[in-house]
Amino acid sequence: MADKSVTLYDLQVSTGATISPFVWATKFAVRHKGLDLDIVDGGFTGIMDRTGGKTERLPAIVDDGTWVLDSWGIVEYLDATYTDAPPLIPHESVAVMLKALDAWFWGAAVGPWMRSYCADYRDVCFEHDKDYVTSSREVMLGGKLEDLQAGREDRLPAISAALEPLRLALREADFLGGSSPNYADYRIIGGFLWLASLAQTPALATDDPLRGWYQRVCDLYGGLGNHPGLFPIFGLEQREGDPELFIRDAGIGGIYKRNTGPASTQAETKMIRKQD
Amino acid sequence: MADKSVTLYDLQVSTGATISPFVWATKFAVRHKGLDLDIVDGGFTGIMDRTGGKTERLPAIVDDGTWVLDSWGIVEYLDATYTDAPPLIPHESVAVMLKALDAWFWGAAVGPWMRSYCADYRDVCFEHDKDYVTSSREVMLGGKLEDLQAGREDRLPAISAALEPLRLALREADFLGGSSPNYADYRIIGGFLWLASLAQTPALATDDPLRGWYQRVCDLYGGLGNHPGLFPIFGLEQREGDPELFIRDAGIGGIYKRNTGPASTQAETKMIRKQD
Repeated sequence: MADKSVTLYDLQVSTGATISPFVWATKFAVRHKGLDLDIVDGGFTGIMDRTGGKTERLPAIVDDGTWVLDSWGIVEYLDATYTDAPPLIPHESVAVMLKALDAWFWGAAVGPWMRSYCADYRDVCFEHDKDYVTSSREVMLGGKLEDLQAGREDRLPAISAALEPLRLALREADFLGGSSPNYADYRIIGGFLWLASLAQTPALATDDPLRGWYQRVCDLYGGLGNHPGLFPIFGLEQREGDPELFIRDAGIGGIYKRNTGPASTQAETKMIRKQD
Repeated sequence: MADKSVTLYDLQVSTGATISPFVWATKFAVRHKGLDLDIVDGGFTGIMDRTGGKTERLPAIVDDGTWVLDSWGIVEYLDATYTDAPPLIPHESVAVMLKALDAWFWGAAVGPWMRSYCADYRDVCFEHDKDYVTSSREVMLGGKLEDLQAGREDRLPAISAALEPLRLALREADFLGGSSPNYADYRIIGGFLWLASLAQTPALATDDPLRGWYQRVCDLYGGLGNHPGLFPIFGLEQREGDPELFIRDAGIGGIYKRNTGPASTQAETKMIRKQD
């Protein structure tokens, strides 16, 4: 157990689980530094009241009286302040590459999932949050939540298939951090745990190769990602005509040492020369 | 000037420029270690003859009599052997994240560009390579090169637009490596320089924000990426009805510290609450 706690203002739904992917990432980041979490409960409305006017958005933390806002601002603060603990960003290149990875992940998965789960998103909120969530998300997404969500069974397989770059990266590594986790893992798991906080139907195959990484990260820090209010995100069935939910023949493609001499490339050579 | 040279087996086209993205990445990787390049010229055919039966694929290097194959194998060798020079992979997390970034980049750009430039690809090769390149690429791509390439003007704008994660990552950083380049930069620039070795029409806007990074990397090591045989890849014009070639309002989205208190979020709050 850590000797010290940091106050974290949470953004929760009616199950008590955190919904915000940024708050999820921040919870892991605080625990990564060996600090305990002192959670201030709450949902979407009343954030300004709860924080005494300090912020409209969460996460926010208070550490020994110092308010720190913004998920990225908190990462910078924690790494600058708790230098004896393992860094969240162990090299400046990790920060730059995480920006690319995060932007890809939102475009490929979180955004499309939001449009496929936006009514679930509203339904799982606290009653007093539902009017705000409905109207604000209808502005953000440009339509009625039920209309946008309709037909998601035809869209979910392609979203799963689009996650192949993440599967490939984690094929031979336990974490995006390598042998131990860093903020890249926490940032990306935030998107999956956001989905798990609201999904009334699963988005990924039962045997998705990402599941090992997902569970490894959720199990960190006493099972921080295993909140009882979460819904299963693995369990999507591939239907006739759906794209493959993930590539089963994982031996093809990507960065790894493949050419160990002519014997290692002869099969491919024979294949591409067959019309010679 | 470095005191020591490494022999590198090149994969070139008729202009003398390197075509292989993996050889491009390897050239930068060798120079990153303070080593000079002793280039063995050549194209697609005759690799087994040139290398004395050592390999069917390039790159390959010979360092003090030691053969090292495979672009990733060469990275591992160089970092293990030349430990006094800056690492190509400065943290294990960079290797894992580069695998994701590279897989995304191939799916989003290099693959679609290949199908839009496959006849140019063949046309720029040495005469004695053209039969092999035509037949092997028709097997790989599943059609006649001219047929596949046709209509590329309708596809190039969306490929440019898809590079936004890379633009976002490099918005506040000189290199994917941060303040100095590492193998992530070399691996990704390899895809752009592959394109530049063959493109008879540009793929990216003249004012693409990636251009600064592209030129910074090309200028390294005495202008390693500025080969006179390369074709311009910047200069694509956006036509009526095309998607935006890149996002001009770069202030939106991605990882950066945005919430500095209520004043920083009020405009967004007003926007999403307009239907309240």
